[in-house]
Amino acid sequence: MKVKAAVAQAAGQPLSIETVDLEGPQAGEVLVEIKATGVCHTDAYTLSGADPEGLFPAILGHEGAGVVVEVGPEVKSLKPGDHVIPLYVPECRTCEYCLSGKTNLCQSIRVTQGKGLMPNGSSRFSLGSQSLFHYMGTSTFANYTVVPEISLAKIRKDAPFDKVCLIGCGVTTGIGAVINTAKVEPGANVVVFGLGGIGLNVIQAARLVGANMIIGVDLNPAKRPLAEKLGMTHFVNPKEVEGDLVPYLVDLTKGGADYSFECIGNVEVMRQALECCHKGWGESIIIGVAGAGQEISTRPFQLVTGRVWKGTAFGGAKGRTDVPKIVDWYMDGKIDIDSLVTHTMPLEKINDAFDLMHKGESIRSVINF
Amino acid sequence: MKVKAAVAQAAGQPLSIETVDLEGPQAGEVLVEIKATGVCHTDAYTLSGADPEGLFPAILGHEGAGVVVEVGPEVKSLKPGDHVIPLYVPECRTCEYCLSGKTNLCQSIRVTQGKGLMPNGSSRFSLGSQSLFHYMGTSTFANYTVVPEISLAKIRKDAPFDKVCLIGCGVTTGIGAVINTAKVEPGANVVVFGLGGIGLNVIQAARLVGANMIIGVDLNPAKRPLAEKLGMTHFVNPKEVEGDLVPYLVDLTKGGADYSFECIGNVEVMRQALECCHKGWGESIIIGVAGAGQEISTRPFQLVTGRVWKGTAFGGAKGRTDVPKIVDWYMDGKIDIDSLVTHTMPLEKINDAFDLMHKGESIRSVINF
Repeated sequence: MKVKAAVAQAAGQPLSIETVDLEGPQAGEVLVEIKATGVCHTDAYTLSGADPEGLFPAILGHEGAGVVVEVGPEVKSLKPGDHVIPLYVPECRTCEYCLSGKTNLCQSIRVTQGKGLMPNGSSRFSLGSQSLFHYMGTSTFANYTVVPEISLAKIRKDAPFDKVCLIGCGVTTGIGAVINTAKVEPGANVVVFGLGGIGLNVIQAARLVGANMIIGVDLNPAKRPLAEKLGMTHFVNPKEVEGDLVPYLVDLTKGGADYSFECIGNVEVMRQALECCHKGWGESIIIGVAGAGQEISTRPFQLVTGRVWKGTAFGGAKGRTDVPKIVDWYMDGKIDIDSLVTHTMPLEKINDAFDLMHKGESIRSVINF
Repeated sequence: MKVKAAVAQAAGQPLSIETVDLEGPQAGEVLVEIKATGVCHTDAYTLSGADPEGLFPAILGHEGAGVVVEVGPEVKSLKPGDHVIPLYVPECRTCEYCLSGKTNLCQSIRVTQGKGLMPNGSSRFSLGSQSLFHYMGTSTFANYTVVPEISLAKIRKDAPFDKVCLIGCGVTTGIGAVINTAKVEPGANVVVFGLGGIGLNVIQAARLVGANMIIGVDLNPAKRPLAEKLGMTHFVNPKEVEGDLVPYLVDLTKGGADYSFECIGNVEVMRQALECCHKGWGESIIIGVAGAGQEISTRPFQLVTGRVWKGTAFGGAKGRTDVPKIVDWYMDGKIDIDSLVTHTMPLEKINDAFDLMHKGESIRSVINF
């Protein structure tokens, strides 16, 4: 079938809007009509060429929502008409990782997904004679896409696509980091580094679970009002702190953060996030993605005296199980997604979404098909 | 009173056996007759001058056992005749840290202990006109010492001093790291770096809790027989591994260690210990003490893909609560301490104990008074 897509032809170039060919779903695959998709920093990271695993030409996008149009052979859990959110971390429920009970990092299709292919080793997208790579198993920058069954979360039909699409990445990553990875408890003091799409969701999850102080750290004071709306109790601009940031945060929290979250991808900030944690028990969670080859460092004394260094991917969430719950939370008014959608546009304007992101003017732009 | 003690007059010099003066216990303090003490790497570290917080002249020693001789005013939990193990990590049961339920790092007397003084800011030891510093709040290299009440674990009277003294440091550190910090579960695969006094106790604790593979890593093949006796199932000598050690260990464990323990104090080994952990859930525990100013590093991707980096001090054990239980385990035959005591000697020969340690010939030397 003919599909409208934003194609990343090469690193560093704008996306081009093309009519591409999409083959139907094969065994275990599902054809989804994408109704809306967010544009995330990870898309920009890959498009920039900095991602060592980036492949071109490809159809990017991993924060979508849509409707099942057709299912391939052997698909049992979905049928045409179901509303779904594509998952870049699948949940097969049969691999060692899924069954461990300790992680969300399902490995069942990791190799082919990393190669930009469907699980059987081929692509469904092409442009003329040229095969196009899938991206993160989702490729939501197209009005139709093919996704493995295990990479689709079935959601309720009354949820608006143009909001819950963000649950496909940013919302779940931030909320899951608080709930699944850190397991923040009521009364805890939390420090959040970076008040973008992830950091804001960390903040609203910290409020949801009853945190005490919720401190946001960002160089951009324009981030403050929305962060406060979502639950931030204290704003710290490192440029306005005299002396070192770490002792300032330790003083502010009267001993250090019970939990800190790095939502930027800056290895120096990751160190600050660890070291501002409370002696004896403070845990720091790395969410941001650092540049290729970059390393984090600290003195081991920081860990020996009780701090814990962790990371999280997709907020430790098991997508097929957890994403529908987060959709419910949105529909119940427990979490705010509307405020995070600062811009909307049609697919034809998708390059504007990247521009807004790079200028720091948007939290999330959503593409409506 | 007059007391026989091994005095550390200055960094890098042998201890000198002296008759020193010891004042009686003041409020909240207890006079203990030390019956036996182990000699630990931490004593050697401080004596070497490498410890930036080392103070001289001092009476070292922190792995002892003895009998209460006299209690000062306000002491309620102990009486003369009680058998005790001095604790370098106290347990006041009233500070924020003790009450947190999240850490064993009682802070109630941290400042004075770090200055080599009793909680009221003075020393009980002197040699002629010269005041001597206490060490780690314990100073067990003397046949009598004064210790705060909150730094004494009361133990059963039928336990042999010359064995259970090791529960004052090495045994509890290794066993506690497994039980309290890592919480190793039955069936887990464990990798232990360094088969000295700490590593061997990690191994026997891993066996105690039902671990599956218990892999010991050491450059010295002479460590192998005792480690195997205590429960090691696989021995790896990095010198005999072709290629990199980390992928070798990942292969050996079919995916990586569920838990790894660094028992050396080498920051490069700390990195290997983290990176040999299983994707998704492997946890690495730093026990060894690195040199002043040294740093650990890794790529944050290691954490984002689910590995956890932790540390532990005194095995996360709350001394007054946990040490008596570990004494019971020894008396019940659940753990082996006898095999760890490779040498015994009188106080006059204590410098031989340091020599044996530096040559790698001893696991633990115990001084019998």
